[in-house]
Amino acid sequence: MKIIIIGATGTIGKHVTAALAKEHEIVSAGSKSGDLQVDISSVESIESFYKAADKFDALVCVSGDGHFGPLSSMKDADFRIGINSKLMGQVNLVLIGQHYIKPKGSFTLTSGSLAEDPVILGANLSTMNGAINGFVHGAAIELENGVRINAVAPSVVEESPAYFPYFPGHIPVTMEKVTQAYIKSALGSQTGQIYKVI
Amino acid sequence: MKIIIIGATGTIGKHVTAALAKEHEIVSAGSKSGDLQVDISSVESIESFYKAADKFDALVCVSGDGHFGPLSSMKDADFRIGINSKLMGQVNLVLIGQHYIKPKGSFTLTSGSLAEDPVILGANLSTMNGAINGFVHGAAIELENGVRINAVAPSVVEESPAYFPYFPGHIPVTMEKVTQAYIKSALGSQTGQIYKVI
Repeated sequence: MKIIIIGATGTIGKHVTAALAKEHEIVSAGSKSGDLQVDISSVESIESFYKAADKFDALVCVSGDGHFGPLSSMKDADFRIGINSKLMGQVNLVLIGQHYIKPKGSFTLTSGSLAEDPVILGANLSTMNGAINGFVHGAAIELENGVRINAVAPSVVEESPAYFPYFPGHIPVTMEKVTQAYIKSALGSQTGQIYKVI
Repeated sequence: MKIIIIGATGTIGKHVTAALAKEHEIVSAGSKSGDLQVDISSVESIESFYKAADKFDALVCVSGDGHFGPLSSMKDADFRIGINSKLMGQVNLVLIGQHYIKPKGSFTLTSGSLAEDPVILGANLSTMNGAINGFVHGAAIELENGVRINAVAPSVVEESPAYFPYFPGHIPVTMEKVTQAYIKSALGSQTGQIYKVI
């Protein structure tokens, strides 16, 4: 299979890429690195990216920024960071990518445990994660030609110790467990699923 | 209590307003009707609105547009209809309103059953509803001075028969049941809750 991985060099992305590269053709992508570059906050960049990548079997997105900061001083502009990157970036990868993906292909997006298990400073990410989960439910029943869509919703991961102080009592999840959730989505047969890794 | 109702003349809003008006001071608001006008898609309009409304005990928002249409032809601009109105409209009512609401006050937002129970054409609304639910979880643990926040998540309501064909097998919920969920949020004591009315 030809698998596009957006955010292939990131904390999670590098593990997913290494695991899938054993048996599949990988097109790695990132904002500055990878086989192809893409700015997922730009519709034009995503359009150009898909034209360059050509037809594919699966897309895995492990990229997308959000805002992490106190609700008491949060502004519309802060909130739009998550809207434009983590949410609309991933949504547009699907809205545009549905016209490039092969029949029976799959999209795997990234949400996160904050949708339902919030932490202080995380209101923007809770919102974006809930949004991605909702989008997966809604899109799964409309994608044509057997194309599937799921999201992986991890808690804080073991290789991001800088975040540990913000997740008191959350047990960091192993990269192995997170990686397997992406593989389950991309190589499995389910659709409309939120794979919680907690 | 002084209760602001955004969308007070809408299908749901008029019932919530009638129920709460029996024992409370209501400030009705809408884009064109009500005691005060507000365009919730505009930060400036929300700022002006709160200055005019002054301190309040509870805000109930039963307003917010989304896009209803096929995923196969959906574009970024379509998706932004829901982002700018139903999502950021309600989020900004809280981000700005947290500085005007009285201690122990409450925000009640509107999401909907499509977050987890999708229908064809509803991907944008599924996303917005999931986002609102995530925001409620995230904001509830940060709001100060005992201020609460919940969302009501109704299925299709009995007084919107035009939508029935798009909700096959969904049993329309009564206005009485929906109204009580808003009252439970505004007059109750819980926070961070999603009151599903299905």
